[in-house]
Amino acid sequence: MHLTPVTWRDGQLFIIDQTLLPSECREIRLPSLESVREAICALRVRGAPAIGVCAAFGVLVALEEMRPADMAAGLQVVDAAADRLETSRPTAVNLFWALRRMRQAARAFAGQTGSLRDWRDRLEHEACALRDEDTVCCQKIGDYGATLIPDGAGVLTHCNAGALATSAYGTALAALYRAHESGRAFRVYVDETRPLLQGARLTAWELLQAGIDVTLICDNTAAQVMREGRVHLVITGADRIAANGDTANKIGTYGLAVLAHAHGIPFYVAAPLSTFDVDLPHGDRIPIEQRPGEEVTRAFGRLTAPEGVAVYNPAFDVTPARLIAGIVTERGILKPPYEEAIRNCFENHAEPT
Amino acid sequence: MHLTPVTWRDGQLFIIDQTLLPSECREIRLPSLESVREAICALRVRGAPAIGVCAAFGVLVALEEMRPADMAAGLQVVDAAADRLETSRPTAVNLFWALRRMRQAARAFAGQTGSLRDWRDRLEHEACALRDEDTVCCQKIGDYGATLIPDGAGVLTHCNAGALATSAYGTALAALYRAHESGRAFRVYVDETRPLLQGARLTAWELLQAGIDVTLICDNTAAQVMREGRVHLVITGADRIAANGDTANKIGTYGLAVLAHAHGIPFYVAAPLSTFDVDLPHGDRIPIEQRPGEEVTRAFGRLTAPEGVAVYNPAFDVTPARLIAGIVTERGILKPPYEEAIRNCFENHAEPT
Repeated sequence: MHLTPVTWRDGQLFIIDQTLLPSECREIRLPSLESVREAICALRVRGAPAIGVCAAFGVLVALEEMRPADMAAGLQVVDAAADRLETSRPTAVNLFWALRRMRQAARAFAGQTGSLRDWRDRLEHEACALRDEDTVCCQKIGDYGATLIPDGAGVLTHCNAGALATSAYGTALAALYRAHESGRAFRVYVDETRPLLQGARLTAWELLQAGIDVTLICDNTAAQVMREGRVHLVITGADRIAANGDTANKIGTYGLAVLAHAHGIPFYVAAPLSTFDVDLPHGDRIPIEQRPGEEVTRAFGRLTAPEGVAVYNPAFDVTPARLIAGIVTERGILKPPYEEAIRNCFENHAEPT
Repeated sequence: MHLTPVTWRDGQLFIIDQTLLPSECREIRLPSLESVREAICALRVRGAPAIGVCAAFGVLVALEEMRPADMAAGLQVVDAAADRLETSRPTAVNLFWALRRMRQAARAFAGQTGSLRDWRDRLEHEACALRDEDTVCCQKIGDYGATLIPDGAGVLTHCNAGALATSAYGTALAALYRAHESGRAFRVYVDETRPLLQGARLTAWELLQAGIDVTLICDNTAAQVMREGRVHLVITGADRIAANGDTANKIGTYGLAVLAHAHGIPFYVAAPLSTFDVDLPHGDRIPIEQRPGEEVTRAFGRLTAPEGVAVYNPAFDVTPARLIAGIVTERGILKPPYEEAIRNCFENHAEPT
């Protein structure tokens, strides 16, 4: 799956506007800092790793837009751009991770070169490196994750943790692409994922294009599909993983994990290490984005609820580590106890499995 | 809540076309047997008790349409109409129950009168009696069910088991209306209930009109709402209840029951005895209606999934009796072991609680 949702071409930032999918696969240019922020807020670009990559390039868009006269002004532009982009979405930690990396690189490069042009080029190189590293992570996650998918399996996934959510390949879906490439036959059940239907609009579209056997279900049908014995594992992406393995992901993930547990089905998470927030001891402290009620009542143009009804629309929930059978990363599949596995992974940079 | 989804007026059948709600509350006339069948198939009228009431009047619509010359021809019309209406929807047993009652009444009345006109009038009286009995059942279910709802409670419901689903008042929602009338304050979380959004379109609308505190959520948010401690009980309607208490209801109900169990929250079902199918020993034998995939991919008018994707769209699931804390009927709240409670209820016609 060589779909790239975020493209840096000739010093300009382009994204696939994911709000138009699956009807239309249109690339749009993001010419300004505010257009980058708007694209993230409006989910034109979404998925924790893709948001991080897009934000890194967003810093370069701001430099192009503001054209600072010297490096001191350039550093101010980087900080102001990062500050602004950090206000776009609160839950996925990759956004903050990527922006921190760009801030730190800007400072480091300022000590390495006296040329504004050279400094800017090094920053561009840093953003490209961040993107390319994400692609390599996704490939490795795909390799490790594919080992979880036996021939003949039924797999359930939620939201979109595919190529569209990353720089390329995806996380949870990378595992499916790899298993498919290696000739294994399996069926994927995709939750449509209300309110914005990333499962129906994005995951089903990606998997169909890749020639994978995919069946769309409503979110509330997952339990029945499990009960009928059609699902052998659940695998999703993640937006933020705490030091103990508690995992924030798209709303509905927690319920799926509870249902999988009740049916004796393993529930896996797939995410690069950039999704881990080891400063948070557990998931209760992960900030959960609240989205407008109109996403639920007017998601597709038509009003589907009475005018004025109260809506509770959290965009994410947190799955406690005890419900997670394994976390697939670019360094292997972490297993419980996660606190230790995650600490080892970050402290030793060693292969955990 | 004095909303009546099915109205028999001057020998003509009218329904509120529920597919237009909440944007428009329009009454339409069903002038022919086929229009009655279409209205049931297309969910213009829905909800197990309301389907039963509508089908009973549908037999009278057929008699008006066919104008049989004598009672023998009249009996043929009744049988043909019942045969036809029985093919509309397979899961809710009230449909079959109401049509059986109309067939039996037609035969019984044929032995009691020689006048075609009198025979037809008796059948009309029978359909009206069936409707009025349903209304009384709903009132009693409301009285019993209200005892389950303490002041300050958070209640979660799914789909629509309200006035719109019955002749009046509702089943699960009758309990809420009664508790509200008696001055108790509580908050209701309503699952939107994909694919056809009966929770968002119908239940939220009914409860708002009644002045009850209602919050709409996506189906996949129920687990999170439970985890946050906002829900003290779940109550839903039913489409068919087997002799052991296994309960078919709108898809998603089974998952809710599993989630409620995992969170230590009692899960209740509310239904009249006409919803019980005591000939079925358990729920595995309840026929589950499969609905078109377009309900999922085009429910909002716009195509929300890739063209050609496979869809699994069962309209119902079955909740095993072990997950049900109580079944609220017009004869009281049945408690486990249900096999015995249900048998007593049907054999003795005594008050079980």
